[in-house]
Amino acid sequence: MSAFEKLKDQWARISRLEQTIGILSWDMETYMPDDGVKARSEQLALLSELAHQWLISDEMGALLDVAEQDASGREYFSDEVSMIRVARRAYNHKVKIPKKLVARLARTTTRANSIWIKARKKSDFNLFAPILGEIVELSREMADHLGYAEHRYDALLDVYEPDLTSSQVEKLFTETKRELIPLVREITGSSALIDTGFLNQTYDTARQESFGLQVLRDMKYDFRRGRQDRSAHPFTTSFTPYDVRITTRFAEDDLLSALFSTIHEGGHALYDQGLPLDKVDTPLCQPISLGVHESQSRLWENIVGRSRVFWKHYLPILKLHFPGQLDHVDGERFYRAVNRVHPGFIRVESDELTYNLHIFIRFEIEKDLVAGAIRVADIPPLWNEKYREYLGITPPDDALGCLQDIHWAHGLIGYFPTYTIGNLLSAQLYQKALQEHPSLPAELAEGDFTGLLAWLRDNVHGHGSRYTSAELVRAITGGDVQVGPFMNYVRDKFRDIYA
Amino acid sequence: MSAFEKLKDQWARISRLEQTIGILSWDMETYMPDDGVKARSEQLALLSELAHQWLISDEMGALLDVAEQDASGREYFSDEVSMIRVARRAYNHKVKIPKKLVARLARTTTRANSIWIKARKKSDFNLFAPILGEIVELSREMADHLGYAEHRYDALLDVYEPDLTSSQVEKLFTETKRELIPLVREITGSSALIDTGFLNQTYDTARQESFGLQVLRDMKYDFRRGRQDRSAHPFTTSFTPYDVRITTRFAEDDLLSALFSTIHEGGHALYDQGLPLDKVDTPLCQPISLGVHESQSRLWENIVGRSRVFWKHYLPILKLHFPGQLDHVDGERFYRAVNRVHPGFIRVESDELTYNLHIFIRFEIEKDLVAGAIRVADIPPLWNEKYREYLGITPPDDALGCLQDIHWAHGLIGYFPTYTIGNLLSAQLYQKALQEHPSLPAELAEGDFTGLLAWLRDNVHGHGSRYTSAELVRAITGGDVQVGPFMNYVRDKFRDIYA
Repeated sequence: MSAFEKLKDQWARISRLEQTIGILSWDMETYMPDDGVKARSEQLALLSELAHQWLISDEMGALLDVAEQDASGREYFSDEVSMIRVARRAYNHKVKIPKKLVARLARTTTRANSIWIKARKKSDFNLFAPILGEIVELSREMADHLGYAEHRYDALLDVYEPDLTSSQVEKLFTETKRELIPLVREITGSSALIDTGFLNQTYDTARQESFGLQVLRDMKYDFRRGRQDRSAHPFTTSFTPYDVRITTRFAEDDLLSALFSTIHEGGHALYDQGLPLDKVDTPLCQPISLGVHESQSRLWENIVGRSRVFWKHYLPILKLHFPGQLDHVDGERFYRAVNRVHPGFIRVESDELTYNLHIFIRFEIEKDLVAGAIRVADIPPLWNEKYREYLGITPPDDALGCLQDIHWAHGLIGYFPTYTIGNLLSAQLYQKALQEHPSLPAELAEGDFTGLLAWLRDNVHGHGSRYTSAELVRAITGGDVQVGPFMNYVRDKFRDIYA
Repeated sequence: MSAFEKLKDQWARISRLEQTIGILSWDMETYMPDDGVKARSEQLALLSELAHQWLISDEMGALLDVAEQDASGREYFSDEVSMIRVARRAYNHKVKIPKKLVARLARTTTRANSIWIKARKKSDFNLFAPILGEIVELSREMADHLGYAEHRYDALLDVYEPDLTSSQVEKLFTETKRELIPLVREITGSSALIDTGFLNQTYDTARQESFGLQVLRDMKYDFRRGRQDRSAHPFTTSFTPYDVRITTRFAEDDLLSALFSTIHEGGHALYDQGLPLDKVDTPLCQPISLGVHESQSRLWENIVGRSRVFWKHYLPILKLHFPGQLDHVDGERFYRAVNRVHPGFIRVESDELTYNLHIFIRFEIEKDLVAGAIRVADIPPLWNEKYREYLGITPPDDALGCLQDIHWAHGLIGYFPTYTIGNLLSAQLYQKALQEHPSLPAELAEGDFTGLLAWLRDNVHGHGSRYTSAELVRAITGGDVQVGPFMNYVRDKFRDIYA
């Protein structure tokens, strides 16, 4: 057996452990009885330890070395070279970080999680500041072990978005910001009225669920390879492309939240179900990055799900689900309501436009923290100042301000930018799909998503992790990640809505 | 760290893998999407292989040797000595069987499973005979590796019921048979009429579920440490005492099936939830044997659930769940209906009395197969002859005869007797509980199970696997497993019903 074959075998074993961790985690969030949590964390710890050991084993290192030598000279994007490259990246990420640092980070983030909950409850950043300081320090150490060419932050970003650098992000974000902030000001200054009054009703959750399931079926989410359950926070989890599950939650007083979360998670799930079936358990049967994953969920949620043509088809069907409740609402009114722009304090409740402003703030702050340009104590004033500058509002307290997100408590530094990268990519991909398939809007207006899904399967999903996000965009468009398509899309859409 | 401490550590790791296997299997039977099955079998194969490797490792063998030496002279039933003893038993069972034999058995039973399905469909034992022959041969080989003092079959029985021998089983079963067969004849010859006509109605499954959940709550099945879901075949699965799940299934045209299956699985689950919480992940936090497990499910299902006092309390509540449907049924009529004795071909549909006759037939046949006293080809005529002799009926074909059970196809030889051992134990345990707690029937008549559950927790559940079944009976009653309590119980009960 060649080193490459052995490498694939070993990878498959690790992959099956990771799948198992996924199943245990899904169960924990959906059906596990309350008192099962302690045993569950022991099971998860054991499996994670094993998967980590196997990945960073000397055997794995040696197999990678030999497989790379054997493959030298072969085509960069061939299956073999791509698999070795992706496996090497995973190996390097893990092997470079000392075991002690991993353990310290795990202990610190476990403590940070409960401190963050308390601090947010009391809306007191000072409670959270010391442990956040520790996490920033540990992240800097981690970055030093991982290595980087230019900025320390690049090493952290690379974990979530391979090969993307903070200079590139900064360039993209600065360009977006320059156009987006004036656009948001223009809109909030507009006299156009968006009527969302009809949303203030009680919407039966069983009917919400039934409508959402119909949309998922129309999107061709494959229920033979997936299912939807309920959980406290919606998520998508994928064990293999043969088992990709989503969750949602329903509230009687909120029609839109479950609906758009179902479409959002459905977009993630279509990506995972579309990963190459003939590459299961290999390094290529993975999504590319968080940014590309988010591009899929945002494309379906926003570009499709918040489009005029989508509601042309679905509003009549939605009305059938809620007889009498939406009779007086026409398509245009519904379309405007689901696209209301409203600068608010909370990222996860924000609209398609302002969402990115929330991201810029987090990116700028965490980048400066890692660079040592600011200290943890500087966060609250800086946060509030940026909210004033970008969104025109001032958070009244830390709970509605810099304590709202759990990411930093979990040690996820370098993660936030991928959300906006996802938004940019979603528009760029859709623009290309539209060029190649001009009948897309007409199809969407009929509730027919087969053309769009086929394009995504061919151009994105089916490649697995053969490309980085930049390589994917180059393969599809011949060029780089661009701000233009996103800004053109939102400018046209929201200038139209806000006249 | 002492060898004993290291042994406990290693056992805990194996135990967590086994728990994970349990979770994956539960998910497979309840929520897994259809196309997830191939990946799931790969995940399960990996974890099973690991758990097996760890258990039979040289390290484990050495730890057991040293721990046994260190503990020599200590009290036999102490935690330490008991843990080492139970771990040694598990180790010996696995280490004695060559890897090749395990693999051959796995391959053969996988093939046998699909052949059995086909053979049963066509009702043709000849299709199944050759592979059953292979399974018997492999089981004999396995028995030789495991070792035994008297009969080869003892080695197989020991896997499910530690230390029980076929001579003991034969003695118990012969004694039971001698009294049970005439009793069944007496009853089937009786002119007493049992009216079950009211069961031929449609019973809403949501109401069936709601009633079953109320019974489970009353039984003090702890929903913080468990849950009930639906599956094709009802089962109980336990990861730790903190997470013990049951499943059931409902049919509109069958009120009793789901009901008694819920009580039955509830009895299993109470045992698993009652295992010692301070011994989680140690060898003692396990049930004793299949027989003791079945004694718990049968005690709740039959002795409690099919008692007059139980229905005194629950019939009015059941009536509330099905308004108008049971108005004309009084407690006595319901009690008689759920205790109808009716010799039939199918074991799993049989009543409390004849169930054991089905078991005797299987035990006698598999024992003779393993001993080489009969050949596989002899099974169909022998099966039918025994059904005539014990139950007074002749199976019309193999599907309703010797092809009805999946056990042999799965290689489960030595398993069947534990069902009747469970029945005998259930009566013996209940008799003792009643002696020590004479108000039990009065409590049951009020739907109050706390006294019974407390007795079972103290006398059975809480010991974990410290005792074998024989040792448990000795600890509780001072004597051996006996036929008397069961025969007295059924004689009194059914002579009363059938006048």
